[in-house]
Amino acid sequence: MKALLLVAHGSRKASSNDAVEQLTAKLRDKLLASEFSEIEHAFLELATPSIPEGIARLVKKGVSQLVVMPYFLAPGTHVVDDVPAFIQAARQEYPEIVFTIVPHLGGVEGMADLILESADVH
Amino acid sequence: MKALLLVAHGSRKASSNDAVEQLTAKLRDKLLASEFSEIEHAFLELATPSIPEGIARLVKKGVSQLVVMPYFLAPGTHVVDDVPAFIQAARQEYPEIVFTIVPHLGGVEGMADLILESADVH
Repeated sequence: MKALLLVAHGSRKASSNDAVEQLTAKLRDKLLASEFSEIEHAFLELATPSIPEGIARLVKKGVSQLVVMPYFLAPGTHVVDDVPAFIQAARQEYPEIVFTIVPHLGGVEGMADLILESADVH
Repeated sequence: MKALLLVAHGSRKASSNDAVEQLTAKLRDKLLASEFSEIEHAFLELATPSIPEGIARLVKKGVSQLVVMPYFLAPGTHVVDDVPAFIQAARQEYPEIVFTIVPHLGGVEGMADLILESADVH
């Protein structure tokens, strides 16, 4: 079973964290059209669930493959160092699960088109 | 003439700011397929060009309509307060130009699909 973990930075503003939770709910509704059976979100810092908590939730559901998407626009320290460090620790804790980190959101194909489409609408 | 200003947070890491510049270059290549004639990027803090500098560059090129896209995923203080404050100041400085702020990137339609498409690839 393949699952997606959306990892956001986390904020002191509840409304900002709520937006990530709402996006995850929206993604959950779309999962049937994808390869994923489950999705959870997690925060790098300042908010919960933490990354280990998000992973534990998916492990409980019986995932065998866990794809981590860093919900970050910039390839800064969080993307390059911090998220991979959490996943490395998770690999040791759950050796039976295959972890993959996909490129951070700012680096994906399609971002440029999404920006132009969104700006054109208005 | 309609122009797009992509406003990112800005980072102490040059590679992170470079990524925004590269994305802007990629967007510039795609402008022919959109309503926009020009595009520039700007940073809210920690890097240059600043927002007033980015706007000044577009003003020099003769824009009449300037669309500001906050390149942020979370609707935090930067999106809710800081970027609008810069644009309000610009409206007073350039009363002949129509400024519009479109929703921050994390709030646009299509984001959920982009995430799933990107995660599926791997």
